[in-house]
Amino acid sequence: MSVFPADVERARAVLAGRIHRTPTFRSSALGVSLKAELFQKTGSFKARGALNRLAALTPDERERGVVTWSAGNHAQAVAWAAAEEGVDCLLQMWEGVSPLKVEATRGYGAAVDLSPPDPAAAYGRVLEIVEEQGRVFVHPHSDPLVVAGHGTIALELLEDVPDFETVVVGTGGGGLVSGIVTALDGRARVVGVAPERAQAFPAGLAAGHSVRVETDTIADGLAPPFAGELPLELCRGGRVETVLVTEDEIAEGMRFLYARAKLACEPAGAAAAGAVLAGKVEAGRGVAVIVSGGNVDPEQAAAILRGQ
Amino acid sequence: MSVFPADVERARAVLAGRIHRTPTFRSSALGVSLKAELFQKTGSFKARGALNRLAALTPDERERGVVTWSAGNHAQAVAWAAAEEGVDCLLQMWEGVSPLKVEATRGYGAAVDLSPPDPAAAYGRVLEIVEEQGRVFVHPHSDPLVVAGHGTIALELLEDVPDFETVVVGTGGGGLVSGIVTALDGRARVVGVAPERAQAFPAGLAAGHSVRVETDTIADGLAPPFAGELPLELCRGGRVETVLVTEDEIAEGMRFLYARAKLACEPAGAAAAGAVLAGKVEAGRGVAVIVSGGNVDPEQAAAILRGQ
Repeated sequence: MSVFPADVERARAVLAGRIHRTPTFRSSALGVSLKAELFQKTGSFKARGALNRLAALTPDERERGVVTWSAGNHAQAVAWAAAEEGVDCLLQMWEGVSPLKVEATRGYGAAVDLSPPDPAAAYGRVLEIVEEQGRVFVHPHSDPLVVAGHGTIALELLEDVPDFETVVVGTGGGGLVSGIVTALDGRARVVGVAPERAQAFPAGLAAGHSVRVETDTIADGLAPPFAGELPLELCRGGRVETVLVTEDEIAEGMRFLYARAKLACEPAGAAAAGAVLAGKVEAGRGVAVIVSGGNVDPEQAAAILRGQ
Repeated sequence: MSVFPADVERARAVLAGRIHRTPTFRSSALGVSLKAELFQKTGSFKARGALNRLAALTPDERERGVVTWSAGNHAQAVAWAAAEEGVDCLLQMWEGVSPLKVEATRGYGAAVDLSPPDPAAAYGRVLEIVEEQGRVFVHPHSDPLVVAGHGTIALELLEDVPDFETVVVGTGGGGLVSGIVTALDGRARVVGVAPERAQAFPAGLAAGHSVRVETDTIADGLAPPFAGELPLELCRGGRVETVLVTEDEIAEGMRFLYARAKLACEPAGAAAAGAVLAGKVEAGRGVAVIVSGGNVDPEQAAAILRGQ
């Protein structure tokens, strides 16, 4: 199981006209280009991978439908892609998921199951459903078609950023960064930014395999308990430099993007900008920073903007 | 003194490559197109008119420099345009102007005078400075070159919005709406949205001339004490429909743009969207809503996002 540049090119053709070609802005205040992927369908880059995966279902798989395990951007993206493709969709969440997040996915017509007590139990339930009902599990990051779909963002950077030489991107499970590495295939430097308090990706890269970590960060979109084996495989061998950011640096990044770039992003979408703002990655004409998503509870956004 | 469509075309040529060609997004949630002018240079549409005005200075006027009277987006725009054109700039503000707003203009290298006790005294001081020093007063809205510059936004809408038939825009002094009316010259319907608590533009339109009003609104960018005679002249005769919005409707518009469109706009920039959201202007495929600016104090933004 791997992913090649040609898979990303193919994904681009599949997605053309069905997702947004998001804009890239030059920020003179930060000294970099900002890829405004928060304006993507469903509010994050996850729509790219989800639609690329769903569009490849066989007629038989379409009959059986899809299932996934997420309470965040991946859930919204899969629900949206399933509606686009006319495929039945079940989202496996768990007790206590915020009603706002549930509504965002139900709005696309997906069924949501909140009965398992916690994420681990919900994951077990997904595996049972795949077994019993034959639904296709759309994995958040360890799926070649998902990774290839995410990688299309890098093809747009190659077009949009003059003298493009570095991309800075937040890392969680590794789906986005591994798609970018695959798409670029050595044509630019890739810097992956992880919260100090959610190190699944750098820990996995250091260990050479997926490692379970504890997480406690405002950037919930970057806080899976472990990174994917496929992403780690695609990123090993020095293909990604890693940088850690503090909670304050993420919050500063979010405030900066709000006040100076007018972008209403989520904390996970601000980690990469926060790393540049903190001087941990050098700014420059050929540097592109990905603002990966904008799905944040207004209460949480307000608290961060007020510096709490 | 008037403004013609050809003046707007000329402004477009002057501004080409010097301001941002801001993007237009389709919002399926609101059912309209959103012109994201908050991404304009200096964070608002005011950069269009200011640069068009400054670029037209004669060599003699350039020697003497410019002066303006504003503590808001117009001040930032004139300061920026003056730096672009290499012209000396004095911003006449008054005691008590927020340090954030002063910094935003000093950052462009302009001199700021905060000594007058209030806006009326500051305005008097501007007239003295024009008399004594020969500086050119860059008026916020009653200047044909400023109006023509603002009108260029409508030429972009004609290109970007399929079946464009209505534009919805917030009104304060009337500079932006009158530029749009001039540029469109009957090619689309124009709806001007004013806060119930800042009715300078609709009151002036109804009276047939500029009328002084009391204002008390979160949309400070739409709250001049009176509209301009030139804008009112350009908009009379049924060329603009007017709609009033409440403070809650403006705040709802801002929350909607944040949560659903990921746009970090200022209250004045949300009034037009608020009118559509409240059902006061009908949504539709050919409807464009202008999100005019994004310069807001983070504390105020946070309070509005939290619904206070």
